Amino acid sequence: MAEFDLIDLVRARTGAAAGRGDVALGIGDDAALLRVPPGHELVVTADTLNAGVHFPPDAAPADTGWKALAVNLSDLASMGARPAWCTLSLSLPEADEAWLRAFVDGFAELAGIHGIALVGGDTTRGPLSIAVTAMGLVETGAALRRDRARAGDDVWVTGTLGDAAAALVLGGHIPADGEVPPVSADVAAPLHARLARPTPRVEAGRRLLGLARACVDVSDGLLADLGHVCARSAVGAEIDIARLPASPALSAAFDRPSRSALQAGGGDDYELCFTADPALRDHVAAALELACVDATRIGRIVAGSGVRALDAHGRPWQPPRSGYVHFG
Amino acid sequence: MAEFDLIDLVRARTGAAAGRGDVALGIGDDAALLRVPPGHELVVTADTLNAGVHFPPDAAPADTGWKALAVNLSDLASMGARPAWCTLSLSLPEADEAWLRAFVDGFAELAGIHGIALVGGDTTRGPLSIAVTAMGLVETGAALRRDRARAGDDVWVTGTLGDAAAALVLGGHIPADGEVPPVSADVAAPLHARLARPTPRVEAGRRLLGLARACVDVSDGLLADLGHVCARSAVGAEIDIARLPASPALSAAFDRPSRSALQAGGGDDYELCFTADPALRDHVAAALELACVDATRIGRIVAGSGVRALDAHGRPWQPPRSGYVHFG
Repeated sequence: MAEFDLIDLVRARTGAAAGRGDVALGIGDDAALLRVPPGHELVVTADTLNAGVHFPPDAAPADTGWKALAVNLSDLASMGARPAWCTLSLSLPEADEAWLRAFVDGFAELAGIHGIALVGGDTTRGPLSIAVTAMGLVETGAALRRDRARAGDDVWVTGTLGDAAAALVLGGHIPADGEVPPVSADVAAPLHARLARPTPRVEAGRRLLGLARACVDVSDGLLADLGHVCARSAVGAEIDIARLPASPALSAAFDRPSRSALQAGGGDDYELCFTADPALRDHVAAALELACVDATRIGRIVAGSGVRALDAHGRPWQPPRSGYVHFG
Repeated sequence: MAEFDLIDLVRARTGAAAGRGDVALGIGDDAALLRVPPGHELVVTADTLNAGVHFPPDAAPADTGWKALAVNLSDLASMGARPAWCTLSLSLPEADEAWLRAFVDGFAELAGIHGIALVGGDTTRGPLSIAVTAMGLVETGAALRRDRARAGDDVWVTGTLGDAAAALVLGGHIPADGEVPPVSADVAAPLHARLARPTPRVEAGRRLLGLARACVDVSDGLLADLGHVCARSAVGAEIDIARLPASPALSAAFDRPSRSALQAGGGDDYELCFTADPALRDHVAAALELACVDATRIGRIVAGSGVRALDAHGRPWQPPRSGYVHFG
């Protein structure tokens, strides 16, 4: 399958659906021509998924297509940007039309939800790898950044944490802490869905403009990602581990110590962790209700540096294991 | 070597050197914030190089770094855009610091020449692959495109053609037509340099704004790339094979039939092929003289479709072989 076949296939599924008036020239020339509206900044991020590292080689191709875009949209969400355009560089060991069509199904499904247009890219022969660069738009000066947290801010997180890491544990892809409990398909399925098809919190990010001070998406793990915010903002943070939000499936599958470890250290959740002035609590809650996502206060920004995790009694919490191991 | 180490390394070599005032927020957050000046369109292209497909696995890493950026800058050049920003997604089988430093040397050297800033990207574990998305700026409505050629236009090409393909033939990477002559190092070296470190014709593209009608860069081969212009513009073209410009090294190494085949069908030259109103010949020549690159009229756009290659007597020219085979 030649480069033009695949890119045309994706374009037919994403470009037309997006119907964006700001694409002056799309796929088919040496480059795309795009129009950034006045009063906006361009927001750009690039993330790659490699088979065997970021997803199992036998992952459903539709899930892989979805996730390759989702991890990039999550970065746009954490800046408060509206998704606009993207490029896709796909390396494939061989032309497998069934795989490709399913991949495009998943990619186009998520692209359609967010109205993002594919405007360029290439397909090359090589080991399976998907590199996406996503571009978004945000009102000039309004973007959410990592470097704006202040001592006294609340720390919030959207949705729930730990499901994706739980799915990796149940799948045997990362070592468990202690015995993995037997779980029913009713419990395993929603956990796996969170890993396979993460939901980028785009609407939440938009609603947080003007409310959140600092924001990051939880891709490496809550404590690690909040650590990036602290380092960039020259502050510290205290997190109340007992407050971390858990899904029903996570609570059903793991006891509290294991659950806490997955919530605090696990990655791949793609929730937003942000800080905000405590005076704005009601506004934050209302904004995220409009975005149809739960929000939980999980701690506070303090003077100093680093992230301290505290148990229900305010004592230092220690994870049963250190760090988070990527699949593979 | 962690993601941040490498990206920081590249940033230190490219971000600072570029010193662009339009980067509101560079590497270090979830995404970069960039400012497109009023009256400009954003020009975006993405091209990937895979080891063993687009370059030999044992290629000098500095050359690989240069070329990964060069092929993208060439796409910006063919649109008449000024390079501005780029992302780099690098997959590496292992952390090899010497390789990385040399790779960054080559990437940063070319980035510095064109003042393009690296604003994002990632490094992942995987087979060697380099995906770059390059962004440039062009005055709104002024971009050179493939779909603007008109019957009666001259067809021009910058520089010389066939050197990169000649280097592939001499290296045994693509089959030769007949016997490959023995060549001295003095002849082989400049041919290899064209393959390893192509020169994107950025300044030429800029100078052609308002002069050229249609433009494409020669990456797949002159006849193939001009074919894209014809298809998009709904015109045909006639190319006088005897007029195709050759470098002294190419002329020294190959007889005329072989040379013509390399010039007409070989890829990887990254020259610009463009069309322009014959009334503007002197202006085109003067513009490209200011860009310090030779320009040669090689044919004309005609009504109809497809590209016809003609010999010195105006008869159909046939290549000794069909198509162009990528390395590997």
